[in-house]
Amino acid sequence: MTSTAGKSIAKRKTKKIILADIPRVGPGTPAGEWLRRYWLAVGTVKDLHDIPQAVKVLGEELVLFRDEFGRLGLLGLHCPHRGTALEYGDIEDGGLRCPYHGWLFNVEGQCLEMPAEPKDSKFAQKVRHLSYPVRELGGLIFAYLGPHPDDPPPLPKYSPLMDRGGQRQIEPVRHCDYNWFNFYENSADPAHICILHRHAGYGEQTWGNHFFSYQEMPAFDYVEMDYGMKGVLTKPGPTPDTEFVDEMSLALPSIIQVGDTEFVHAKLDAAALMRDGSQCEHMLFLTPNDDDRFMIFTVDYYTGPEADFFEKLKQMRARELPKQEVKAYDRRKYVPFKGNIRQEDLITQSTQGLLGERQEQLAVSDRGVIMFRRIVMEALVTAWKGGVPKGLLPRERADQIIHLDSFVGVRAKRANQG
Amino acid sequence: MTSTAGKSIAKRKTKKIILADIPRVGPGTPAGEWLRRYWLAVGTVKDLHDIPQAVKVLGEELVLFRDEFGRLGLLGLHCPHRGTALEYGDIEDGGLRCPYHGWLFNVEGQCLEMPAEPKDSKFAQKVRHLSYPVRELGGLIFAYLGPHPDDPPPLPKYSPLMDRGGQRQIEPVRHCDYNWFNFYENSADPAHICILHRHAGYGEQTWGNHFFSYQEMPAFDYVEMDYGMKGVLTKPGPTPDTEFVDEMSLALPSIIQVGDTEFVHAKLDAAALMRDGSQCEHMLFLTPNDDDRFMIFTVDYYTGPEADFFEKLKQMRARELPKQEVKAYDRRKYVPFKGNIRQEDLITQSTQGLLGERQEQLAVSDRGVIMFRRIVMEALVTAWKGGVPKGLLPRERADQIIHLDSFVGVRAKRANQG
Amino acid sequence: MTSTAGKSIAKRKTKKIILADIPRVGPGTPAGEWLRRYWLAVGTVKDLHDIPQAVKVLGEELVLFRDEFGRLGLLGLHCPHRGTALEYGDIEDGGLRCPYHGWLFNVEGQCLEMPAEPKDSKFAQKVRHLSYPVRELGGLIFAYLGPHPDDPPPLPKYSPLMDRGGQRQIEPVRHCDYNWFNFYENSADPAHICILHRHAGYGEQTWGNHFFSYQEMPAFDYVEMDYGMKGVLTKPGPTPDTEFVDEMSLALPSIIQVGDTEFVHAKLDAAALMRDGSQCEHMLFLTPNDDDRFMIFTVDYYTGPEADFFEKLKQMRARELPKQEVKAYDRRKYVPFKGNIRQEDLITQSTQGLLGERQEQLAVSDRGVIMFRRIVMEALVTAWKGGVPKGLLPRERADQIIHLDSFVGVRAKRANQG
Repeated sequence: MTSTAGKSIAKRKTKKIILADIPRVGPGTPAGEWLRRYWLAVGTVKDLHDIPQAVKVLGEELVLFRDEFGRLGLLGLHCPHRGTALEYGDIEDGGLRCPYHGWLFNVEGQCLEMPAEPKDSKFAQKVRHLSYPVRELGGLIFAYLGPHPDDPPPLPKYSPLMDRGGQRQIEPVRHCDYNWFNFYENSADPAHICILHRHAGYGEQTWGNHFFSYQEMPAFDYVEMDYGMKGVLTKPGPTPDTEFVDEMSLALPSIIQVGDTEFVHAKLDAAALMRDGSQCEHMLFLTPNDDDRFMIFTVDYYTGPEADFFEKLKQMRARELPKQEVKAYDRRKYVPFKGNIRQEDLITQSTQGLLGERQEQLAVSDRGVIMFRRIVMEALVTAWKGGVPKGLLPRERADQIIHLDSFVGVRAKRANQG
Repeated sequence: MTSTAGKSIAKRKTKKIILADIPRVGPGTPAGEWLRRYWLAVGTVKDLHDIPQAVKVLGEELVLFRDEFGRLGLLGLHCPHRGTALEYGDIEDGGLRCPYHGWLFNVEGQCLEMPAEPKDSKFAQKVRHLSYPVRELGGLIFAYLGPHPDDPPPLPKYSPLMDRGGQRQIEPVRHCDYNWFNFYENSADPAHICILHRHAGYGEQTWGNHFFSYQEMPAFDYVEMDYGMKGVLTKPGPTPDTEFVDEMSLALPSIIQVGDTEFVHAKLDAAALMRDGSQCEHMLFLTPNDDDRFMIFTVDYYTGPEADFFEKLKQMRARELPKQEVKAYDRRKYVPFKGNIRQEDLITQSTQGLLGERQEQLAVSDRGVIMFRRIVMEALVTAWKGGVPKGLLPRERADQIIHLDSFVGVRAKRANQG
Repeated sequence: MTSTAGKSIAKRKTKKIILADIPRVGPGTPAGEWLRRYWLAVGTVKDLHDIPQAVKVLGEELVLFRDEFGRLGLLGLHCPHRGTALEYGDIEDGGLRCPYHGWLFNVEGQCLEMPAEPKDSKFAQKVRHLSYPVRELGGLIFAYLGPHPDDPPPLPKYSPLMDRGGQRQIEPVRHCDYNWFNFYENSADPAHICILHRHAGYGEQTWGNHFFSYQEMPAFDYVEMDYGMKGVLTKPGPTPDTEFVDEMSLALPSIIQVGDTEFVHAKLDAAALMRDGSQCEHMLFLTPNDDDRFMIFTVDYYTGPEADFFEKLKQMRARELPKQEVKAYDRRKYVPFKGNIRQEDLITQSTQGLLGERQEQLAVSDRGVIMFRRIVMEALVTAWKGGVPKGLLPRERADQIIHLDSFVGVRAKRANQG
């Protein structure tokens, strides 16, 4: 942090961070500055081909590409020369070439060529285009848009991204057109599973029927973690000294791990699963495009014995279509939605409006949401003041595999702690 | 009116109401406050099924529903808990249940259940959601969005809404995407009938040809009424002591009655009609969704002898398609329109822009419009100051059938008075 | 200029004109006032039929029509009476009649009739609607929206618009949805031809291959002219004392002449062309609709011997489709574009953003653009202060044919001057 930056942070202290700051992610906003302290998923290896890919991240128009040598670059979308979108450029000669006048940029944003300039011109050497560090891990592409491009924090080695003898699947990227935080905080709210999703797959098989019952909901508990927060849902187990447990983790700034994917969707050998716990890590990386849109990157990592686990999972999900009968007079935009978990989440979250703008009356069962907002607000304040916000990986843990310990299964009863 | 309200009204006196205030209907605007003093049509019985119906009224996002016991409710669209649209909720268990966390609201907005709250929670009792009084009359559903929800003014028993041995028809609701007042004041402007509609059905049968002649227009006169204003159009009658008369009524805040429906469209026995006068009340209830859109609810009540009057009317209207030949080079958005009265009204009104913003030069033949704007402005000022605006039904007339006396036919000549 | 105008100009002197003023064309803006000093193309004779044509010019909503006597009129789109769009009016009885109340306006905006007014009313005589001078020349329709409607400057007799024994073609009007100046200044930038258009028709025939080579670009030079600016591109000629020349002219405020149309596209007898120079004037008239959209009116005038020159040109252009292979994963909006000059221009210019808002780093090869912006800025300043901006035709040249001398061919070597 330079002394200039220090001064600007000193000034910032006078701004009071409020709830309405959370959903706004543009440059210079508290949440925007906070999110810029971490690595964020911006693409997938599978979807990045030999053409540039325009992507908006935290309100910034950018272009992602892989050069001929396999290096990844994330540059400002508009050529610094006269503004043309590099999305239409050519990947060649060691970089990305603007279609208009052929300026060529390497992955660091360094201009390498200006074909129309005099042969002896040194101008190219002086032009460096906006460029952000990009890294590839486990099939995802991450970028760091923060204040220390030359010395970014370590990219956490989240366990599902690391090869450990299991099977990995990257789901097709989901693009949503509402504010990202509505989706994120929904994961701090287990009550909605028993209620909103009562018509869905959850209700149709053993785990869902028993655990996420509308009539008899599980007990909820929330634990603040070094990475963020964990929700712990419990019910009395098969024997008096055991309990059924379903946990989900929220790792700052925008990661969710849900542990019960194979229980709910894949319907494998339930008894073994109960005994051994979840064998599929299902991790979601959220990245806001701007205040109104976000992307969901989903990684599944399976370490169990089924060779065709993901094929089975896919088939199960395909069968989870909305089951709602649509009446002739029903013209509502999002009908049918009942019976499909993702559609159900969509209609409830996309109609909420912006946190801090909408009116709310929170209740006891919102205590997960309340705790999570508090944790996020503290992280915003910390980042705003130039400190190290929660969940930012310390350098000494750079080489560790980062496990989010979202257990699902039967275990010995314990006190309120995940 | 509470003393707080009294104070805020005292403050309001300092605001000068201007023409540009008329088309703006949001909460806290002069026209918005004025319109909120009356009952407004917000739906039809026929179109309200067993699913919630989102409807925007005067800039407020609301949801209309009928509970299992047949009671009508009009609540704020967004659940007071965390903002999800109740449009996707379920009508069950004595109310409307939010899809997200199952909060259940009855038609008065009282929260009845919060399934995820502790069994002994009393929080539901403390939550009352935004709710407006709703009533059903003659196939229409009316709501009162005003300052006295617990003691609203009487809902006027407009004659076409009351069963009196005749036949009633509710036309399909029309949704228009321009400012409602352009439509409303068009009815205070009989000149346009002879001119704009000269290509339309009016010109193709006896009544239209004779009465609304482009070459020889009827005399226009306007009379201020207790309910608003009436336009009186006259031509010399078949005998020296008689006159042909066509009247139309504008009842505040947003009602129009046109008397000549069967003359113009149904083409029944003309001699009898002339002698006996119109037997079909054709009443329009306008409700602004916001400043840019409005709905038209149309009720026809026929007291004549034809058993299949509405079937005939429907067939006549179906034949009144635009007759305009569309040339190959004609790419104008609203072509064809000539020959269809509703299309003709649409193109002229939707391109006018907002009253008070558009430039105008009014003429002698606009005296109906001028008088009507004056009457509306006075009502706005009265409402703004907390008084009783014109057309608001006094309690002592609550049980009367309200006739808007728009006569059409031949009658003895009289002085300038409707 | 009246003394009132003089005062307002005195005030204006305090405003500093900046680059960001160039692309904004609304009334009262510096560029808007500058463009209003000239005649601008607003339509074509061929496209103006017996119906009114709505057209937005410099941010003003207008309607163009030709009355029954063949006179052209350009009036405000909205009727001065109550605002209805005259686009839906009828051309009859010596003018354009509003559909709503039949007010009739002649091409000068004078109201001729108000059918609903009393027979003895004189009000029509007092109403004069917004009207701009319009003239027809060589198949195009020009309008003057400036401060001296009764005494506009002469409409320049640009040579391709004047009949001189050759053949004329008016191309279909192109409508573009980005700022007009991105297109205009692109013509002051010959570098882009060798680079952006390297995949296009230019590269596929003798002239393009040799002259606009990506590897060996021609020398560029720019000359300020009385009409604006000329770009002069040269390469060593077939003999030591000759040079190949390709010139293009930018005539203020918004005209481009490109000289090499038949070299590039028509592929006629190259040797003869080289010797005699271009025989086809290819002139573009740009007219901004507003800050985000503009129209391109293109006139070709051919004075060579080929009877079917335009038919050949059309066939050549039809073959110049984008040649780019579109990969299955390529979802970019404007793909394919490579190989079609107009598509290539579109993707580069439409993504630039507004001049003065976008960030830029200009180089030596932008010196044409830099000079041109300087010339335009000076014209803006001059017009803003009430002076005579560059390119405004003096009255004494009103009868001259205006040649823009964009030579293309081989000629004796000369010093740096067009």
